[in-house]
Amino acid sequence: MLIVMEHSATDYEVEQVKTAVHTMGLEAEPIPGSERTAIGVLGNQGYVEDATIRNLPGVREVIHVSKPYKLVSRDFHPQPTLVQVGSVTVGDDAEPVVMAGPCSVESEEQMMASAQAVKEAGADILRGGAFKPRTGPHTFQGLGVDGLKLLRQAGDEYDMPVVTEVMRIGQLDDVCCYADVLQIGARNMQNFDLLKEVGKLDYPVLLKRGMSATIEEFLAAAEYILAEGNSRLILCERGIRTFERATRNTLDLSVVPLIRQLSHLPIIVDPSHATGVRSLVPIMAKAALVAGAHGLMIEVHHAPEQALCDGAQSLDGAEFNQLMGELNGLQNYLVSKKD
Amino acid sequence: MLIVMEHSATDYEVEQVKTAVHTMGLEAEPIPGSERTAIGVLGNQGYVEDATIRNLPGVREVIHVSKPYKLVSRDFHPQPTLVQVGSVTVGDDAEPVVMAGPCSVESEEQMMASAQAVKEAGADILRGGAFKPRTGPHTFQGLGVDGLKLLRQAGDEYDMPVVTEVMRIGQLDDVCCYADVLQIGARNMQNFDLLKEVGKLDYPVLLKRGMSATIEEFLAAAEYILAEGNSRLILCERGIRTFERATRNTLDLSVVPLIRQLSHLPIIVDPSHATGVRSLVPIMAKAALVAGAHGLMIEVHHAPEQALCDGAQSLDGAEFNQLMGELNGLQNYLVSKKD
Amino acid sequence: MLIVMEHSATDYEVEQVKTAVHTMGLEAEPIPGSERTAIGVLGNQGYVEDATIRNLPGVREVIHVSKPYKLVSRDFHPQPTLVQVGSVTVGDDAEPVVMAGPCSVESEEQMMASAQAVKEAGADILRGGAFKPRTGPHTFQGLGVDGLKLLRQAGDEYDMPVVTEVMRIGQLDDVCCYADVLQIGARNMQNFDLLKEVGKLDYPVLLKRGMSATIEEFLAAAEYILAEGNSRLILCERGIRTFERATRNTLDLSVVPLIRQLSHLPIIVDPSHATGVRSLVPIMAKAALVAGAHGLMIEVHHAPEQALCDGAQSLDGAEFNQLMGELNGLQNYLVSKKD
Amino acid sequence: MLIVMEHSATDYEVEQVKTAVHTMGLEAEPIPGSERTAIGVLGNQGYVEDATIRNLPGVREVIHVSKPYKLVSRDFHPQPTLVQVGSVTVGDDAEPVVMAGPCSVESEEQMMASAQAVKEAGADILRGGAFKPRTGPHTFQGLGVDGLKLLRQAGDEYDMPVVTEVMRIGQLDDVCCYADVLQIGARNMQNFDLLKEVGKLDYPVLLKRGMSATIEEFLAAAEYILAEGNSRLILCERGIRTFERATRNTLDLSVVPLIRQLSHLPIIVDPSHATGVRSLVPIMAKAALVAGAHGLMIEVHHAPEQALCDGAQSLDGAEFNQLMGELNGLQNYLVSKKD
Repeated sequence: MLIVMEHSATDYEVEQVKTAVHTMGLEAEPIPGSERTAIGVLGNQGYVEDATIRNLPGVREVIHVSKPYKLVSRDFHPQPTLVQVGSVTVGDDAEPVVMAGPCSVESEEQMMASAQAVKEAGADILRGGAFKPRTGPHTFQGLGVDGLKLLRQAGDEYDMPVVTEVMRIGQLDDVCCYADVLQIGARNMQNFDLLKEVGKLDYPVLLKRGMSATIEEFLAAAEYILAEGNSRLILCERGIRTFERATRNTLDLSVVPLIRQLSHLPIIVDPSHATGVRSLVPIMAKAALVAGAHGLMIEVHHAPEQALCDGAQSLDGAEFNQLMGELNGLQNYLVSKKD
Repeated sequence: MLIVMEHSATDYEVEQVKTAVHTMGLEAEPIPGSERTAIGVLGNQGYVEDATIRNLPGVREVIHVSKPYKLVSRDFHPQPTLVQVGSVTVGDDAEPVVMAGPCSVESEEQMMASAQAVKEAGADILRGGAFKPRTGPHTFQGLGVDGLKLLRQAGDEYDMPVVTEVMRIGQLDDVCCYADVLQIGARNMQNFDLLKEVGKLDYPVLLKRGMSATIEEFLAAAEYILAEGNSRLILCERGIRTFERATRNTLDLSVVPLIRQLSHLPIIVDPSHATGVRSLVPIMAKAALVAGAHGLMIEVHHAPEQALCDGAQSLDGAEFNQLMGELNGLQNYLVSKKD
Repeated sequence: MLIVMEHSATDYEVEQVKTAVHTMGLEAEPIPGSERTAIGVLGNQGYVEDATIRNLPGVREVIHVSKPYKLVSRDFHPQPTLVQVGSVTVGDDAEPVVMAGPCSVESEEQMMASAQAVKEAGADILRGGAFKPRTGPHTFQGLGVDGLKLLRQAGDEYDMPVVTEVMRIGQLDDVCCYADVLQIGARNMQNFDLLKEVGKLDYPVLLKRGMSATIEEFLAAAEYILAEGNSRLILCERGIRTFERATRNTLDLSVVPLIRQLSHLPIIVDPSHATGVRSLVPIMAKAALVAGAHGLMIEVHHAPEQALCDGAQSLDGAEFNQLMGELNGLQNYLVSKKD
Repeated sequence: MLIVMEHSATDYEVEQVKTAVHTMGLEAEPIPGSERTAIGVLGNQGYVEDATIRNLPGVREVIHVSKPYKLVSRDFHPQPTLVQVGSVTVGDDAEPVVMAGPCSVESEEQMMASAQAVKEAGADILRGGAFKPRTGPHTFQGLGVDGLKLLRQAGDEYDMPVVTEVMRIGQLDDVCCYADVLQIGARNMQNFDLLKEVGKLDYPVLLKRGMSATIEEFLAAAEYILAEGNSRLILCERGIRTFERATRNTLDLSVVPLIRQLSHLPIIVDPSHATGVRSLVPIMAKAALVAGAHGLMIEVHHAPEQALCDGAQSLDGAEFNQLMGELNGLQNYLVSKKD
């Protein structure tokens, strides 16, 4: 922590700050400058509450150096984490994983047709939402447990692990019963109680970045899960909210290489929610791969024009099949260059 | 819903769109223009899924006219809603309500001293957090049920209703047992399951705007609560996330008069979380009153420099007492002008 | 400047950083911590380029303590600046100034009628745009020098100083010939050449905040003007761009008291451009006054429904007259409380 | 244009709106709905001022369908524009162009060494800033005309066209004298007078997206240039301002395929300014290529640690050389897949 004093701060005010730091059990190291004095704080074991300091006379600013996460940090844990989902491995050096399927489970027919399409195209993991977070209450809210069952049935039929969103603690038993990966959606990234609960389980978790979460907050949310013991965690960039509305969100692809520097956890990209525009999904999926994503999550519906949810951003089977071919070619190229 | 066609769209493509609209059970009214054709959609009873349309050839854009909320809308329900909390009334024509108290309940001594301070200054409702949403897991997380009990004790001692945050459904029984108003925090504004549950209760609810929620999403979240039957709802603007970081959030004060136009629900302002800066809280509290806020939520700690949470934005007893005097004077002035 | 090292940084890497700092002619003060070492940099006379340091091995982050402005800072110049415009004084302890008039000068009739309306209501300074920055080229671009002449004529007729926007250096001669205050619009806040030129003049300048400018950048832009010798500068908050589009911009009213803390320059508020909604202008104008604004800039058109530009946010004469009455009453109340 | 009425609007109010539309010389087509009436406006030749309408009683919202650009639109001009810069072609089907060089021209030695490095690595166009827009006035502002001469000298010596930023109209003569491509920087994207002036020239222009410009505003700014007759225009995405500050800006890579859909103009990407982080530049450059960028602009300095400006985001010669090899391989792969 660095305490920056006002230009006009008196020696007495500097002394008061030093005393306050000492009272917190920490050490204070003044750094006199030509324009103002700064005071370095030493000895803290992590993030320190700064209220005691911030309100003292003569203090201009308090700058935190410690981050609110440590377990997820590559700085402290250089070894990459590989997350195992059935026979699929996610992380450094593993093949990029592709999770695909419809936004929401709608019916047996739709789920089976969509699962078949994504399996035949080569997807690794089947996605499908049973509990749907919708902006307003007057739209389709998902099939609930019946949806979970259909998703499981489709996964079993086509031999794919399944991933689905869990929206609240009370759903965890059901979701764990039917799913292989628990997805925490963007709106729940800071639902800390839910994070803690999935942190206590021995299940792979997919944590989506909140739509206005900084990277620091995203990693701090991940820290909640690891702090409870579960490190089978996959991060997912899905676009952030900005002033630009020509796309549904703004895909922040630079976070992929950045998070690979900052954390040992795998990170995948969801170009469907990020762009919200079907014609942009394949090209941004390929860009994500080149940016170093450990995988992709893509919405595929066997008949997007009939989808009850997010059809405008869903690929159909043929489009997805073509994309998978392109992704495989691109991945082979990237691997060949690495050697 | 308005469907805007490409400049180059053919008559055949326009016909295809009309057919698709008819298939949805709705009517299509072409509006030919000099540059392009648009197609008005008639007959819908609210928000319509647009995926079927959006992906058709020749379609450039789909514009929604219906809003994802109706019950909260003043357009449909012109009468203002008054929310009763014990003997306190919140809403149009009622005195602005002041909710005050510490960010979090820390100890009996702190809670009693803070309650006494805010009561003596004239606050109406006592606030205090027992369950605290914190960015990282390594900081103080609140006292839980013990905190609820201390809050209740302080409220009873100083004869004030109490408001506290509920973070998950599993806490509802406890919180309802001790609190008078259930607060849904900004991070849970789109925790739709939680919204539905509080919607089933006969308790006043305080719903804070999410940090990146549009007004439309904010009102749609409120719609979840009213749709379940509970209209004892107070909205709260607490700042939004923008590029500007000199303040903790950006207080979006213009939403106060705007929400008063759009909705019949009362709206209060939390200048403490919005600015995050103690010295800005009193002046922005007064500005909020002038902007038409039905009340304020203000963090007060009997000794901010010892606060375990958000001390940098908390007023002490003397500062709050002075602010209340100023607010009362200002309110009397505003009322005198109305007559 | 504070240099934060990686947790895993070696002693050798720390030494390399110290050497680099010394090469820059500055001093390096290591601050060892439990998790990582930080290095304070001493002796700089202002903002330091950090590239030399940032790319050295083992460096995690470089944090700047110095700000890119000094002349505009209250920390260095505690005395408030009063800007004189004809007989009108803008700044601390002066009456709040009201600048009002149409968005753009359209015709003699319109300009005279609007000037009369704002004068009779009690405005201090007449506004009107002759050169208009418009998003697209196919809309009305202003009357140019003819507009300046009409503005001057109206100002003379109704005995008000006039303020108008200057968009480029080549217009300065004309604008100085006819106007009393030179306005730099939001889109030109970082048109540094223009800032330097108006900095060389002995004319009052009104500098609007850029739509995505941080307070730091806003004050640094002001620094350009003062650095050239002109300190007759009035700042203007006019809303920032955020994800929220229910209002044209997001009025960031908290910057008013914040800038009053950080700078000695006067700051006014433009609620017309900030909200873009006529019905929100009067209430936000009053809120701005309470927030401590040294003045207001308000669009008034004698017949807004005929305005060629921004009519949707313009008050008509009667509305403005009523607002002025309310502002005067409020100001009298605020002054009476101060004594 | 679509006019949405309040639910409670009366027949009389609807008639008033129709009358107002007719007065504007346009036609009004009511679209009655179950919840409210909308009124389609027909006959306009482009964007229409809506003030007359927006303020009428009973009007809830006015939605514009026409865009503020037409000349740049692929909808109206389906043929791709190819921009010729000396022997280099930029646009669809041409090889991606690479513009590289230092942020600013600092000295003959630096410029020659950097030019040699980028030439040997295979860059097409040499960049270098002579006039530098800097946040504050107390930092290096560029060498001015001397810088232009050094840039030209280096371009001639190593046989590359040169691109450099022009900040104001008064610099156009000098810049045209020495440069092959005129760059309009992000801060000047809405400096409409400058846009008009370069629109009158027969010079290639590189227009960078403003840091808070929507795609619509970006294309409308381009429209200013084409409207004056100059269609030798290259667009450049360079990151937008968002709440995230871990990177300097947020690279909005999805706009590349989106702009390729909306416009016939070529679009390149500047990953250096977008990320501001040297270690992220190469990977995002490759991602941009995959996303369909017609080229890249990359900061390269022969000795970044000595750079007077933006050294933290500059590659050195060896890094750039490696990147060019990777880009070439990737481009060959992409082309092979297309056939």
